[in-house]
Amino acid sequence: MSVKFRKLALIGIGLIGSSIALAARRQGLADVIAISTRKAETLEEARELGLGDLYTLDAAEAVRGADLVILCTPVGAYESVMQAIASSLAPGAILSDVGSVKQHVVNVLAPLVPAGVSLIPGHPIAGTEHSGPSAGFAELFAGRWCVLTPGPEVASTQVDKLVQFWEAMGSHVETMEASHHDMVLAITSHIPHLVAYNIVGTVADLEAATQSEVIKFSASGFRDFTRIAASDPVMWRDIFLTNRDAVLEMLGRFSEDLSALQRSVRMGDGPALEAMFTRTRAIRRSIISAGQETAAADFGRPHEATPTPTAPVFVREHGGGDDA
Amino acid sequence: MSVKFRKLALIGIGLIGSSIALAARRQGLADVIAISTRKAETLEEARELGLGDLYTLDAAEAVRGADLVILCTPVGAYESVMQAIASSLAPGAILSDVGSVKQHVVNVLAPLVPAGVSLIPGHPIAGTEHSGPSAGFAELFAGRWCVLTPGPEVASTQVDKLVQFWEAMGSHVETMEASHHDMVLAITSHIPHLVAYNIVGTVADLEAATQSEVIKFSASGFRDFTRIAASDPVMWRDIFLTNRDAVLEMLGRFSEDLSALQRSVRMGDGPALEAMFTRTRAIRRSIISAGQETAAADFGRPHEATPTPTAPVFVREHGGGDDA
Repeated sequence: MSVKFRKLALIGIGLIGSSIALAARRQGLADVIAISTRKAETLEEARELGLGDLYTLDAAEAVRGADLVILCTPVGAYESVMQAIASSLAPGAILSDVGSVKQHVVNVLAPLVPAGVSLIPGHPIAGTEHSGPSAGFAELFAGRWCVLTPGPEVASTQVDKLVQFWEAMGSHVETMEASHHDMVLAITSHIPHLVAYNIVGTVADLEAATQSEVIKFSASGFRDFTRIAASDPVMWRDIFLTNRDAVLEMLGRFSEDLSALQRSVRMGDGPALEAMFTRTRAIRRSIISAGQETAAADFGRPHEATPTPTAPVFVREHGGGDDA
Repeated sequence: MSVKFRKLALIGIGLIGSSIALAARRQGLADVIAISTRKAETLEEARELGLGDLYTLDAAEAVRGADLVILCTPVGAYESVMQAIASSLAPGAILSDVGSVKQHVVNVLAPLVPAGVSLIPGHPIAGTEHSGPSAGFAELFAGRWCVLTPGPEVASTQVDKLVQFWEAMGSHVETMEASHHDMVLAITSHIPHLVAYNIVGTVADLEAATQSEVIKFSASGFRDFTRIAASDPVMWRDIFLTNRDAVLEMLGRFSEDLSALQRSVRMGDGPALEAMFTRTRAIRRSIISAGQETAAADFGRPHEATPTPTAPVFVREHGGGDDA
C-alpha cells in the first residue's frame, strides 16, 4: 500500500479535482501535483488555496512527465482536452478520469490514447452539492466507493497502482465494465437527480405566492430534493447527453411504477399503499448498514438547542385560501 | 407569551406526540400532561421515558378536565378516537391535532365536536424519518412552521392561546384555510414522499445483484430519497387516502414536467437541460436563506476525518458486465 507517483496531473480543479489534490497531498501519494484548468480565475483560486505545486493554463504542460493524469473536467470537455494533451502524455503513464458516465468516456478517449499509455477510466462515487476548487476536502472519498473500468488491454500492474491510489485516499475500489457502470449509475444517481430537478422545476413554475409557501414549508420533505438539484448544471447536462439509453430505460421503469402508484391513490387502495410504503424501509436500512449513510435522524441536520425568539407572525388568512 | 394549560392531553405518543410532551414540559406549558395511546407496550415505553404525568389506555380518561387536547394518532384513527372522547371533553377546551392533512380532519371531527369545545386543527411542519415515543425530542419544532386551520366559528382568544403554545415551543405559526393547507402540502410534502417511495420501490424490484450494487453506490444521489421513504407507512397511507384530489392534481403537473424532461434527454437537447438544471438552484438558496435548511454540504452529514483502513475489495469483473 505504498504507491507513490512522481507527478500527478489534475486537469480541471472543481470539487473532485481539489479533493483529490488535498487527499493525495495528505497521504503523500505524489512528489509533484500539477494543476491545469481552462479559466485563469479558477487557476488563481487553486493557487491561493495551495492545492498543488505547479499551476498552468496549458494542459499539455501539466501532463508532461506525469505518470498519473486524471481528467476532472466536465465530460463534455474531454475530447478537446485530449486533443491538447495526447502528444504530451508520457509513455507508461496512467490516464484516468472522474466522470459520472463511463462508456461514452471510453468511446471518446480510447481512439486518442497514444501507445504505451494505460487508459483506466474511473468514477469516485462521492460528492456534495457544492462546486469549485474551494468546495473540495481531503475526506470526501473516505468510506466511499470508486469504480474503475479498465479495458481488457490494460496491464493489471497499472490497474493495481490506481487501485492503491484510491484506497490510500480512503475509497473502496471496484472494477467493472463501463456499460455495466452506466446502467447501475443510471438508477442510483442519474434518475434521482432527474427526478429531483423535475420536482424542483415543478415548484419553480408555481405562481409566486404559492412558491413562497413551498419554501416556507419545505421542511416537510421537499427540501431533501433540492440538495441534489443544486448540483453543477453543466456536469449534469453532460451526464444526460452521454448516458441517454440507460437513463431512458430506467426512467421508463420509474414512470411505470409511478403510474401504478397513482392508480392506487386514485382508487383509494389503502392496503396497496401501506404495503408499498413498508417495503421501501428495508432499502434504507441496508444503505445504513452498508456504511453509506448516517443513521442519525434527518441526515444529522442540526436542530436548534433552544427555541429562537421570533417576531409574531400570526396572520389570520381566512379569506385568502385556495380551494385547489 | 405566558400561556399555561391546566391539563394537556396527548392522544397518541409517536414522534410528534412525544416531542410535544418534551417541549411542553421544558417550557412549562401545562401543569399536568396526560398521555393515552392504544397499545399497552407503547404506553409503557412512554412511561419509562417519563414523557408525562398520567398514563392511560382510556382516551376518555385522559381528556377529562383537559383544557388542551391534541390528537397525535394517525389520521385514520381520528373517528374512533373522537367517538371515544367526545362526551368527556370539557367545555371551554381546545381540541387540536397534528395530522398532515386538514380538510379531511375537519370533515371527520367537526360533526362530533360538542358545543363549547373549540376545534383548531393543526399541523407542525416538522419531523424526522424515525417513529415512536423514543424518537421525540424537545427541539423538533424550533424554527419550524406550524399551520393552524381554525374555522370561522372559533373565538380568536382560543386561537391565540394555541398560537402561543406553539410559539413557546419554538415554532412560527401561520393560520390558513384547511383546503389551502392541503394544496400547499401536496407539493411540499406529499408528492416528494410519493416520488421517493416510488424510486425506492423501483430499486426494490431490481434483481438482487443489481440491488446490492445500488445500495453500495447509493451515495451518488439515491440515498437522499431513502430517508423520507423510511417514514411511517401507516401515516403515509392515511395521507394519500385523505388528500387524494390535491395529490392527483400536483402529481399531474409533476408527470407532465417529467415527460418534457424525458423528451429533452431523448432529443439530446443540451441547452434545454442546462437551463432546467440552472434555474432549480435558486429554489435551494431561497430555502436556506429562509432558515429552513442548513447550508452545510451534504446536509452536514458526517464525513470521516481520516480514511478507514479497509480490506482489499479489488475484484476484476470483466466477464460480469451487463450491457443494459
